[in-house]
Amino acid sequence: MSEDIGRNGLLARVEEFIGCDLHEADEIYLRELESAHPYVSDILKHVTHFRGKRLRPMLLLLSAAATGDINSNHKVLGAVVEMIHTATLVHDDVLDEAATRRHVATVNSRWNNETSVLFGDYLFTHAFHLASSLESTVACRLIGRATNIVCEGELAQVHERGNIDLTEDSYLKIIDYKTAELCAVCCRLGAYFSNADPAIVESLESYGRSLGMAFQIADDLLDILGNETETGKSLGTDWEKQKLTLPLIRLLSTADESERPRIRELLSQPSQESWTALSEMLAGSDAIEYSYNRATGFAADALRHLECTPMSTARQLLEEIVEFAAQRTF
Amino acid sequence: MSEDIGRNGLLARVEEFIGCDLHEADEIYLRELESAHPYVSDILKHVTHFRGKRLRPMLLLLSAAATGDINSNHKVLGAVVEMIHTATLVHDDVLDEAATRRHVATVNSRWNNETSVLFGDYLFTHAFHLASSLESTVACRLIGRATNIVCEGELAQVHERGNIDLTEDSYLKIIDYKTAELCAVCCRLGAYFSNADPAIVESLESYGRSLGMAFQIADDLLDILGNETETGKSLGTDWEKQKLTLPLIRLLSTADESERPRIRELLSQPSQESWTALSEMLAGSDAIEYSYNRATGFAADALRHLECTPMSTARQLLEEIVEFAAQRTF
Repeated sequence: MSEDIGRNGLLARVEEFIGCDLHEADEIYLRELESAHPYVSDILKHVTHFRGKRLRPMLLLLSAAATGDINSNHKVLGAVVEMIHTATLVHDDVLDEAATRRHVATVNSRWNNETSVLFGDYLFTHAFHLASSLESTVACRLIGRATNIVCEGELAQVHERGNIDLTEDSYLKIIDYKTAELCAVCCRLGAYFSNADPAIVESLESYGRSLGMAFQIADDLLDILGNETETGKSLGTDWEKQKLTLPLIRLLSTADESERPRIRELLSQPSQESWTALSEMLAGSDAIEYSYNRATGFAADALRHLECTPMSTARQLLEEIVEFAAQRTF
Repeated sequence: MSEDIGRNGLLARVEEFIGCDLHEADEIYLRELESAHPYVSDILKHVTHFRGKRLRPMLLLLSAAATGDINSNHKVLGAVVEMIHTATLVHDDVLDEAATRRHVATVNSRWNNETSVLFGDYLFTHAFHLASSLESTVACRLIGRATNIVCEGELAQVHERGNIDLTEDSYLKIIDYKTAELCAVCCRLGAYFSNADPAIVESLESYGRSLGMAFQIADDLLDILGNETETGKSLGTDWEKQKLTLPLIRLLSTADESERPRIRELLSQPSQESWTALSEMLAGSDAIEYSYNRATGFAADALRHLECTPMSTARQLLEEIVEFAAQRTF
C-alpha cells in the first residue's frame, strides 16, 4: 500500500497535513529505543532501515484529527504502534527465514535467529512500557488486547497452512485477526484520545477494521496477479508457503463437481506446472473478480464508517487511504 | 531451586501458608488463557505441563504478606508474572532447540518453531493485557520495564557467546538483567500493592534482586559441578553453548601469566578433552569456592534487605528461600 500512497502524492499530502506530528512520533520512537548496551543499539540502528511509510501512526494521527485535536498522547501512541509493527516484522522474518527487508539484511540474516526472537521481544516489551507512560490504563488495555489477537491470528494462519479445505469464513477471520485488528485499534486510539463520543470512537475502529480487511484481500490478490502477469514465472508466494487465500478458495468452492478433484490435486502439490494450470483456471472463473469485489465491499464499508465525522482534510485523507488500499492491484 | 524447595519441605510450608492465594493466581492464569480457537487451546493446555513450583508468584505473594495483606491485585499479578515466565521459557526452548521441558515435549518439537515464536508472543501480550486490568498504570509500567530489561540481558548473553574475555562485571550485569530483574520486580509488586512505605518497597525489590543473583550464580555452579561429579562424562552445558560463567571467568583471571595461554586455548575449544583439563584446573584453583562465596554474599545481602520488615511467617519463608537458592549445589 505504501508504494501506491507514494506514487499518487497522497503521502505528500498526509505529510503536509500532519508532518510535524508524525515527526514527533518518530522522535519519540528513536529516543525510546536508545539502549545503554552498544550491541542492542547496533540492532536498533539497523532496524530503522525497515521503517516504511508509517501507515499505523498515520492512521492513528489522522483519526485523532478527524474527530478532534492531536495531542501529546497521540504522538506517544504513534511511536507505540510503530514499535509493535516493527516487532511483528522482526519475528515474521524469523518465521519466513527472510534474508532481506526493504533492501537491507534482516536481523536474522545479519545476526542470528536467537537475536531476532529476543529483539522482537525487546520491541514488544518496550512498546508496552511506553504505553504505560500515559495516565490511564486504557491504552495498555487496548494495545494488549489487540496485539494478543494479532498473535492468535498468526497462530491460526500457521495452523491452517496446507489446509486446502480452508473456508472463506475462516480466511476472513484470520485476516481480521492478523491484519485488520491492529489498523482498528490505531483508529480507535486516535479517536478515543481526542475525547470523541463513544459512538464515533466505535465508528473509527470499524473504519480501521474494514480498511485492514480491504488491504489484506488486495494484498493477497496482488500476490497472485503480480505473479500471473509475469507469465507464470514464479508461483504465488502465499501459495508456495501453503497459505490459501481468497481467489483460490473461491475457485475451489465454485468449481463444477467434476473439476474439483483435479483442483484439489493441484492445490495440494505446489509446483510450476500446478501454478500454470491453476492460473488458467483462475482466468476462466469469477474468482479474481469476486475477490476484488470483496475488497471493494470492505472499502465501501470503511468509507461509510467515516460518515459520522464532519468533512475535514483528515477525513478526506482517510478516505483516500481506503481507495488506494483496495485498488492497489488494478 | 524448585527441587530443593520440594525436598526440604519448604514448598509444603509455603503452600500451607499461602496455598489458597497461589491457587487463586493459578485459576486466573488458566481462565485467562482459555482461547476461542481450539488450536490455541491445545497449545495452552500443553504448556500447563511446564509449570513448576511457581517461584515468581510465590515471591510476589510472600512479599505482599511480609509487608501487609494479600489482596486481589496480588493474585492477578501472580498470574501475570507466571505468564511472562512461561513466555520466556517457550522462547528459550526455540533458541536452545530444546526437545523436552519437564519431561514433556517443548512447543517447538511438538509443533514447530513458528508456533513457538508466535505462542511466546501470545503469552507476553496476554500478560500485558491482564496487567492493564488493574486500576493504575503502575503494574504495567513496572512489568513493561522489567521484561524489557530481561530481553536486553538475554540479548547481551547471546552477543557475548564465545567471548572468553568476558569480565566478572559483565557477567554479573548479564545475570542481573536476565534473572535477578524479574525476581526483583515480583517482590516490588508484592510490597507496592500492599501499600508498604516506599523505603520498604525498595528493600523488597533489593531482596528479590540479591536472591536472583545468588540463585543464578548457584545455578551456574551446578552446571559445572553437576557435570564434574559425573567424572567428566559430559561438558558443562553452559560452556558447551559457549556461555562463560563465573567459575571459568575466575579461573582465567587468577591464573599465572604462564598458564593463561593454555587456559585460553582450552576455553576456546569446547571438547571432552578440554573439559577434563579444565576440571582439574578448577579443582586446583579457588574458582569454585570464590563463586560459592559470591553466591552466599548475595544471599546475605538478600537477608539484610528483609530486616526492615517485622518478624512473620512470610519473612521467615522468604529467608528460607534465600538459603536454598544459594546452597542448592552443596
